[in-house]
Amino acid sequence: MSLKRPHLISQLGHVELLTPKLEETLKFFVDSVGLEVSDRKGQSVYLRAWGEFHHHSLKITEAKTDGLGHIGWRAESNEDLMDAAQFIEALGCGEGWIEGDIGHGKAYQFRSPGGHLQEIYWDVEKAQIPEEKKSRWKSRPQQKVERGMSARRLDHVTLWSNDVKADREFYQKLGFKHNEAIYLPEPLNKELGAVLAVSSLSHEVAVFLDAEKRFSNLNHVCYALEDRSQIFDAADLIKENGYKLDYHPAKHAAGEGYFFYAIEPGGNRLEIYAGSPLYFAPDYGPVCWEVTENPNDVYTEENIFARDKVANKN
Amino acid sequence: MSLKRPHLISQLGHVELLTPKLEETLKFFVDSVGLEVSDRKGQSVYLRAWGEFHHHSLKITEAKTDGLGHIGWRAESNEDLMDAAQFIEALGCGEGWIEGDIGHGKAYQFRSPGGHLQEIYWDVEKAQIPEEKKSRWKSRPQQKVERGMSARRLDHVTLWSNDVKADREFYQKLGFKHNEAIYLPEPLNKELGAVLAVSSLSHEVAVFLDAEKRFSNLNHVCYALEDRSQIFDAADLIKENGYKLDYHPAKHAAGEGYFFYAIEPGGNRLEIYAGSPLYFAPDYGPVCWEVTENPNDVYTEENIFARDKVANKN
Amino acid sequence: MSLKRPHLISQLGHVELLTPKLEETLKFFVDSVGLEVSDRKGQSVYLRAWGEFHHHSLKITEAKTDGLGHIGWRAESNEDLMDAAQFIEALGCGEGWIEGDIGHGKAYQFRSPGGHLQEIYWDVEKAQIPEEKKSRWKSRPQQKVERGMSARRLDHVTLWSNDVKADREFYQKLGFKHNEAIYLPEPLNKELGAVLAVSSLSHEVAVFLDAEKRFSNLNHVCYALEDRSQIFDAADLIKENGYKLDYHPAKHAAGEGYFFYAIEPGGNRLEIYAGSPLYFAPDYGPVCWEVTENPNDVYTEENIFARDKVANKN
Amino acid sequence: MSLKRPHLISQLGHVELLTPKLEETLKFFVDSVGLEVSDRKGQSVYLRAWGEFHHHSLKITEAKTDGLGHIGWRAESNEDLMDAAQFIEALGCGEGWIEGDIGHGKAYQFRSPGGHLQEIYWDVEKAQIPEEKKSRWKSRPQQKVERGMSARRLDHVTLWSNDVKADREFYQKLGFKHNEAIYLPEPLNKELGAVLAVSSLSHEVAVFLDAEKRFSNLNHVCYALEDRSQIFDAADLIKENGYKLDYHPAKHAAGEGYFFYAIEPGGNRLEIYAGSPLYFAPDYGPVCWEVTENPNDVYTEENIFARDKVANKN
Repeated sequence: MSLKRPHLISQLGHVELLTPKLEETLKFFVDSVGLEVSDRKGQSVYLRAWGEFHHHSLKITEAKTDGLGHIGWRAESNEDLMDAAQFIEALGCGEGWIEGDIGHGKAYQFRSPGGHLQEIYWDVEKAQIPEEKKSRWKSRPQQKVERGMSARRLDHVTLWSNDVKADREFYQKLGFKHNEAIYLPEPLNKELGAVLAVSSLSHEVAVFLDAEKRFSNLNHVCYALEDRSQIFDAADLIKENGYKLDYHPAKHAAGEGYFFYAIEPGGNRLEIYAGSPLYFAPDYGPVCWEVTENPNDVYTEENIFARDKVANKN
Repeated sequence: MSLKRPHLISQLGHVELLTPKLEETLKFFVDSVGLEVSDRKGQSVYLRAWGEFHHHSLKITEAKTDGLGHIGWRAESNEDLMDAAQFIEALGCGEGWIEGDIGHGKAYQFRSPGGHLQEIYWDVEKAQIPEEKKSRWKSRPQQKVERGMSARRLDHVTLWSNDVKADREFYQKLGFKHNEAIYLPEPLNKELGAVLAVSSLSHEVAVFLDAEKRFSNLNHVCYALEDRSQIFDAADLIKENGYKLDYHPAKHAAGEGYFFYAIEPGGNRLEIYAGSPLYFAPDYGPVCWEVTENPNDVYTEENIFARDKVANKN
Repeated sequence: MSLKRPHLISQLGHVELLTPKLEETLKFFVDSVGLEVSDRKGQSVYLRAWGEFHHHSLKITEAKTDGLGHIGWRAESNEDLMDAAQFIEALGCGEGWIEGDIGHGKAYQFRSPGGHLQEIYWDVEKAQIPEEKKSRWKSRPQQKVERGMSARRLDHVTLWSNDVKADREFYQKLGFKHNEAIYLPEPLNKELGAVLAVSSLSHEVAVFLDAEKRFSNLNHVCYALEDRSQIFDAADLIKENGYKLDYHPAKHAAGEGYFFYAIEPGGNRLEIYAGSPLYFAPDYGPVCWEVTENPNDVYTEENIFARDKVANKN
Repeated sequence: MSLKRPHLISQLGHVELLTPKLEETLKFFVDSVGLEVSDRKGQSVYLRAWGEFHHHSLKITEAKTDGLGHIGWRAESNEDLMDAAQFIEALGCGEGWIEGDIGHGKAYQFRSPGGHLQEIYWDVEKAQIPEEKKSRWKSRPQQKVERGMSARRLDHVTLWSNDVKADREFYQKLGFKHNEAIYLPEPLNKELGAVLAVSSLSHEVAVFLDAEKRFSNLNHVCYALEDRSQIFDAADLIKENGYKLDYHPAKHAAGEGYFFYAIEPGGNRLEIYAGSPLYFAPDYGPVCWEVTENPNDVYTEENIFARDKVANKN
């Protein structure tokens, strides 16, 4: 008999990015990605995509370096929030309750084994939409933004970690599905990457190995477009607006997302994504991707023409 | 404090259609919709879309008239299956256990208030893919079918019911989210339609009022394409193949799906769908669509240019 | 032996629209259609789409009513301009030379049998692109505009005429290909519409019958998007911006263009278009569409699910 | 005053490919590219895409090596054919008249300076469409093929030449527009590539330098899909069918076409293409792309993220 999977979390609520260049990072996300500003406070700005219902999905905060501030998970209910807090505390990685932040209520904070600060909350503020931006479509929170690439919603966050296995097991205990696994075969048998989901998305969080801590704690944050046909134009826009692409438009082998990578002015990597299929089965994964010491060889055989640059770096 | 929502069901597993013209219905789904045949037994044929992982998502069975045979829901786990059976039995609508069917294990059967036969199961057979159809993409069950419109997966089923409110409340008890509501305003205050989801899809089941039982028990079954850009070509194909469209390509107001309706040779209505956004929040709905006695007036004002022909019929 | 077809004209250069509401019409074309303003003079504003190389493709001029001001055709060369002027003069419909307008040099003016004022010119001013809008793509005139629906280029103009046959024969004499014909069958045998092209487009000009002069001289002007997948979003935008659709997104039978119609605030009809195939053969047409007195009957049988509302009005 | 440009040619009619593996090449073009067989004779098979009106656009002929057999251009009229033959004969590169081939009438053959055998003809046979493949859309020659990638039409042919300048000047004399130029700057000042068009397409023929005759006479032949959104799926199909990609899906800098390259079993390179804009002006080009001895450096700066592998090889 299968073990019952807990459903403590309903969605990836928000991600906080640190940036040494707050105004330039803000301009990038507003003008090029097409996000809307919900609020500003102190050294932070709160943003949301036009297709999102809650107050913000991105918080950018001025800091000395780029990287991840924290990840915010929305619980499935208030009762689930309480269960989650108790469960995480018992695991010994709790950091305790905070009163909340602009846009959401009290939150329980914790650190995953890889050291990433996270929080879980239930009470959330709906996006306040000015009258002139309200949509005639009742099932969308506001009119589509016709600015930059008009990204529709936050999709996932991908982290660097020095212990992928420990992180992966931690997320699984919280109810995440382990959809895809990237590893070195025997005799090394090392886990290089894990792709995990709380919903039918391919993943809300992925973790990749940075054993020597060469990088920041953040591999990338990812926003989704409506349609894979928009990927090429969006990549083009990034270049026309004077920013750098870190990977040209292509298709991931894992999860089959059409994507490209860009670097925002503060130094964080942004993925733009579309067309990844949905995975409903709790026992879908893990799909296993075996890589060798020479990833180029591997990817020729395994990944067809799409290359996963992230994994290549391991 | 919110009540905790049960998670008994992970996905809409399959739908059984009845047809007085088995071979013609089969040809329609194989050649035009692009489904694969998994098996045949007696007067039934079992089919799946190329992007689906389990044995079948459609069972077509010869019968005197068209309509719905039954709906199959896959549980979230075996323990959830047991919980669901106990819960449904207590509600008084259980029909008892069956040993299963080709493609899945033991199932608990029940009837919703509207009289639709349904079942819930956990054990499922994975699709058996012949060697020459295996894909180089590890995260897809088989190669994409280049036949007909290459539908990717089952999306939802929409039912006619003579008591929408009772049906809606029943699904909510089983943990479905009530995402959208269609109703007549005061003084009639009648519930005409309900759109309900178990995952982040807009809906896996919808129920519309047929107070006088003019229609069969099935409004339509819906398969999804990969991309909204494929909707026009797919509708064209239906006509080129000699079948009838019941509604030309358009966009639904509720759920914002791009769609068209076709009639398969057995008489059942098929919806083809793409581009509906995802709804993650457990407290998202219901978005309320108020209609009047004259739906044409309503839809001009409320639904922008997209018309929901289904609701129009009420 | 076939007669040699003259090549006097290289492209549809621009269309002048009359509007009783200049500023509102301007706002519509700039904010919603996404055109760029090239210049203003007197009661006229000159606009171009981001993908166009010349000074303007649209001139909007304040007037008492809506309708067509004139059509501007660019010659194939200066020598062709001279040949065209001489040829048209000999046909007896010349109006003589003008010195030109902002954006182009001397032009020879004439009236087609249906009374539409037209001109042909060779010298043309290239679009002046400010430094910050210059594109890194050398083969596009400027960066793609991320505003409104980002229409890429002028496609065609469709006229009302009280003598379709006379107009059609006139355009053919000038070297237009007669690609599609719409007519009433015997015994009436009346020509209702003609679709004509100078390039491999389906048409640069079409003429439809308005025998009783119920309408203005302009049926519609048409701009093209890059991709048929953008049609639904563009139609949505028109409604969100508070304008009226005159026909929801659909597919024309003639020319197979994906399209919708909108009404701009001055009263002129705008078509938005994508996905029409190219027709290279000089002897391709005419493809003949026979219609009856009851166009609804006709279109059910002949046009599959796409309806050509223009022809319906006859 | 500009010189009048002759209009002798209306379209690229067909390309003959040589292949040492006739049956395998045939299977590739029928099953994966989705072409239809029009006829077979001797060691040759004649094919056309579903969206093409004439007998064939591709002739594949068994031979010892891969490469180009010949290029067929359709004249603008019979009179233009006669003018072209006289003109080419006067240039000294005529090879004389042939009686024709299956699918077209008498043709005048010639060799361009680069040595590529070509022919021009006027009389052409329309595609014979079996009753069951006839389309309800009158403006398409037959139903869309739902097989492989369903390529819609021949787009262009790209040649290797040891004298790009001589070839380019030859095509210009025949009335081709020189739309794009690739060259080495001073002091070398060498012409590396020329992109030339007879219609509003970006090009029907391109010529790239192979000074040392390392390659065959054919760089690639190119078929167009309907929509750029289909590029990724089509590339995927090529791999799933067991063939090799020579360049992953990307966007060309010159002409802005979305494309990929595949190698057919006989060794010829096939380009699949979509989304290139149209160029109507006779004086549009040439857009100049300056490259250096190190093309990788160049393309980083000049070509944004898209790389033109063809030019890279020079």
